[in-house]
Amino acid sequence: MGDELDVLGVNEAFYDAFSRRDIEALERLWAEDGQLACIHPGWEAILGRDEVLASFRAILEGGGAPRIRCFDASAHLFGDVAFVICREALGGADIVATNVFVRAGDRWRMVHHHAGPVSARRPRSDPPLPKNKKISDLN
Amino acid sequence: MGDELDVLGVNEAFYDAFSRRDIEALERLWAEDGQLACIHPGWEAILGRDEVLASFRAILEGGGAPRIRCFDASAHLFGDVAFVICREALGGADIVATNVFVRAGDRWRMVHHHAGPVSARRPRSDPPLPKNKKISDLN
Repeated sequence: MGDELDVLGVNEAFYDAFSRRDIEALERLWAEDGQLACIHPGWEAILGRDEVLASFRAILEGGGAPRIRCFDASAHLFGDVAFVICREALGGADIVATNVFVRAGDRWRMVHHHAGPVSARRPRSDPPLPKNKKISDLN
Repeated sequence: MGDELDVLGVNEAFYDAFSRRDIEALERLWAEDGQLACIHPGWEAILGRDEVLASFRAILEGGGAPRIRCFDASAHLFGDVAFVICREALGGADIVATNVFVRAGDRWRMVHHHAGPVSARRPRSDPPLPKNKKISDLN
């Protein structure tokens, strides 16, 4: 339970740093090395630490970055790596995100952020996909 | 390099099984246990092995599942966990995916699939985000 709470705490810190437009805090949350990546909503993947952090710097320094609230977060732990799935309340947009973390010493550091729009809603009690629904209808 | 090729091979096998509508092959690619998850394009997250596999079964048995070709795949390895970022050619849709794998014995097994639409194109040589672009413009 300790690891799960730690990972969820770092995930929360990511959204907190973003909302405070604190690029230095945000940079400290990302791993120092490794093959980092980021997919902003609707965008192609950005690969590499410098490129990922530059994208956040551009967003935060642009002045138009919204405050993001994270909710419905679940941590999925696999040893020294974990991913968190959460929803993002971001203005009027409905976003779902996958954030991947790696244990580095006694801290968890971010190595990937993938956020994308939710365009179809379904009650949680429904079957995952109706049989007459094509995956090509999902966009 | 061996691990990287292995992970990319399992990633390719996932798209191959999907395109052949081979639900049994697809099920064998997913981990037997652990906190599995899946985010189909535009959909909320599906959590849990049974729920994830049921969603693929519904898509594949629905008969409308398109053939998906995966390209531009890059493997990001962190010990016994790896994620792959790739594009999906899926009919007319432009999709980017994150697939997470965990080493189980001598095999890599899938634990998460997150696919979402690419709605904005940019040349790869451009800066990640223009300074006057807001993240709220990205959807």
